[in-house]
Amino acid sequence: MTSLAFLSDFGLQDVYVGVMRAVALGIAPSVPQFDLGHDLPPQDVAAASFALAAAVPYLPPACVVCVVVDPGVGTARRAVALRARHGGRTLTFVAPDNGVLQGAWTRVDAVDGVVEVRDPRYRLPDAGTTFDGRDVFAPAAAHLAHGVPLEALGPALSLEELVPAPWPEPERTSSGWRAPVVLADHFGTLVTTLPAAEARARPWRVRLRHGGRSVDVGPVRRTFADVAVGAFVAYTGSSGTLEVAVRNGDAAAALGVARAAARRDVMVELDVGQPPDGAP
Amino acid sequence: MTSLAFLSDFGLQDVYVGVMRAVALGIAPSVPQFDLGHDLPPQDVAAASFALAAAVPYLPPACVVCVVVDPGVGTARRAVALRARHGGRTLTFVAPDNGVLQGAWTRVDAVDGVVEVRDPRYRLPDAGTTFDGRDVFAPAAAHLAHGVPLEALGPALSLEELVPAPWPEPERTSSGWRAPVVLADHFGTLVTTLPAAEARARPWRVRLRHGGRSVDVGPVRRTFADVAVGAFVAYTGSSGTLEVAVRNGDAAAALGVARAAARRDVMVELDVGQPPDGAP
Amino acid sequence: MTSLAFLSDFGLQDVYVGVMRAVALGIAPSVPQFDLGHDLPPQDVAAASFALAAAVPYLPPACVVCVVVDPGVGTARRAVALRARHGGRTLTFVAPDNGVLQGAWTRVDAVDGVVEVRDPRYRLPDAGTTFDGRDVFAPAAAHLAHGVPLEALGPALSLEELVPAPWPEPERTSSGWRAPVVLADHFGTLVTTLPAAEARARPWRVRLRHGGRSVDVGPVRRTFADVAVGAFVAYTGSSGTLEVAVRNGDAAAALGVARAAARRDVMVELDVGQPPDGAP
Repeated sequence: MTSLAFLSDFGLQDVYVGVMRAVALGIAPSVPQFDLGHDLPPQDVAAASFALAAAVPYLPPACVVCVVVDPGVGTARRAVALRARHGGRTLTFVAPDNGVLQGAWTRVDAVDGVVEVRDPRYRLPDAGTTFDGRDVFAPAAAHLAHGVPLEALGPALSLEELVPAPWPEPERTSSGWRAPVVLADHFGTLVTTLPAAEARARPWRVRLRHGGRSVDVGPVRRTFADVAVGAFVAYTGSSGTLEVAVRNGDAAAALGVARAAARRDVMVELDVGQPPDGAP
Repeated sequence: MTSLAFLSDFGLQDVYVGVMRAVALGIAPSVPQFDLGHDLPPQDVAAASFALAAAVPYLPPACVVCVVVDPGVGTARRAVALRARHGGRTLTFVAPDNGVLQGAWTRVDAVDGVVEVRDPRYRLPDAGTTFDGRDVFAPAAAHLAHGVPLEALGPALSLEELVPAPWPEPERTSSGWRAPVVLADHFGTLVTTLPAAEARARPWRVRLRHGGRSVDVGPVRRTFADVAVGAFVAYTGSSGTLEVAVRNGDAAAALGVARAAARRDVMVELDVGQPPDGAP
Repeated sequence: MTSLAFLSDFGLQDVYVGVMRAVALGIAPSVPQFDLGHDLPPQDVAAASFALAAAVPYLPPACVVCVVVDPGVGTARRAVALRARHGGRTLTFVAPDNGVLQGAWTRVDAVDGVVEVRDPRYRLPDAGTTFDGRDVFAPAAAHLAHGVPLEALGPALSLEELVPAPWPEPERTSSGWRAPVVLADHFGTLVTTLPAAEARARPWRVRLRHGGRSVDVGPVRRTFADVAVGAFVAYTGSSGTLEVAVRNGDAAAALGVARAAARRDVMVELDVGQPPDGAP
């Protein structure tokens, strides 16, 4: 049985998400729907792409994911659909062609096809210009989940034709890494893009940079419980990358930075054998 | 297959919405449920009625909608259910009789019946006085979705007996329209009640009024992409009315007005051939 | 048909909840899922336990509830599952052993079994150390909802072995009760732990204490409508305990206290025949 998942930045204040669900239910009444999330940072394609990458390994065996983070709605940007295989699963993604699917295509075992979503039979009859989630993406995703072949939606594209939108990548420094924060989560935890394998490769010392301030976080730990309650802790998190949290607390708040600003204002640095501030 | 939708102002902080879902699932285990939304402005019947109107054209073919925005809970206000036809769909609405259903009955093709929800067989046995969403509305909606006839719920009413609660209507001015803001959405977009047909009828110039401040927004555009990133843009939105947004930004924030206050504090004006401020 | 409910403090900003849903759907594709709520106060076991207690009487006839409020993730705290009967229902709860299930086991008619969740066949193969909701609790709950017997998950425990985490209990005073606020809900309503039977037992006068301030709320009423719009009102609420609200308003805001701080900073007192301030 194929299921249909939604991921968007629409928030849950309005009926926008509900209307997408209603449209999809009308097209594919027997397809189970679920929400991956709707409170992604507004119009932040990189954060959405990263969140999608974190979800990919956990999707059900046959799943269509409708991703709507779409700052280009109303422009000539394409709508696209991409089919992939991953760990025995058949996964299909429908989204604007703005790079948000990079979090999918870089994580899956193989991409089997990409098309432009263009056939008017698979969108709402009176499609407008401001809410393609309702008019284009949810209908296309529901039709795919209901069994319409990928190729029916429009002309084939190659993966190379899709717009890339990489999230901020970690950079090598003379003594280690600068790992950018891609998002601060609900608990105020700072999620970076440094892969777990790199974070565990050497006995790094981790430091937070925020404004002129520097905070020594100590080594990369196994889990929260390796530090005292209230202390900063670096560890490799559930998205497969380095994270910095405060045990049973809020790391963004502890730095005095708003969650939405953490991505821009906080940097995580890793150095080999770096002594704590003031140490000889 | 009939589905069951929920729309409320309960927020998602508490288990109130979850308990409504649980009660309905116990009564109608095979009916698919979905949420239209639960973060409507608290106790704001007009905003809820408007949100419902925006959703009506997109509901699935057979759908019961349970609407709980209920500032009068615990008073003698009635609970009502209304059956309607719209574009080939059979739609049933259950709600407090406070006008919140005006967004439904003014938008559908035909109303086929209205009843007071009164039969104790279709509410919870120990119904209290403070949470009719759980005790009255969700059970009635689930029984209807499960096949109980509308007439079984209680005595018939006429549409004229229902409490009206119109949202703020646009007013004609000497040179155009004053279009009230009915809500500011998750993106800070200012949604008015001026119908799209009026907004497109003439080459209006649009102006925002906020406190003593006036902002020239220019003509009504086709979509966001017709202005530069960061600029205000007026267009006819997905709810079928005039909206004012900031492209890839937040119009409420750009005005320095809280979303919850936008309805009261911001007015959108349309004038014919009005020159920009300072123009001769 | 068994259904699967989720209750967590994960918020809806991230994909954490969505990934739990996806994992459960992969394991138990035909089990209907629903959310009891995900915006509980972060890492507040007592508030979660109280919210769970409020939901228990309304759960569907056969239901597995996956509760993830888990400040001890990554420590040696156990994962547990508990089976109970209540009002003809068969209810199963899966959670960390931190007392969050006290809201279940103190409210049900009978507890039929408790086990430690330990068998690796019923968790994800690469279980990590920071997201047991995804790796341990959702898989165990989905397997149980899919028909795996409770005993298969791990060794039996007695109820007495589980960690207790009582919510703040009301205290007797010389003239009545001090009823602690356990949470302020979405509407700013102050929910206490004083059972409805006690709140209705005598003609109490209710008083709010906040900082040095004292507010006379008057007697315990039947419902909101027994006071004027904008006035404080005490009544026995939908969770079965005493609550204090502002009719059509926000009691926490009216006191000038943040919702998250209401639990710590506000106390509700009940006294017999206590005259209003300034009365002779």
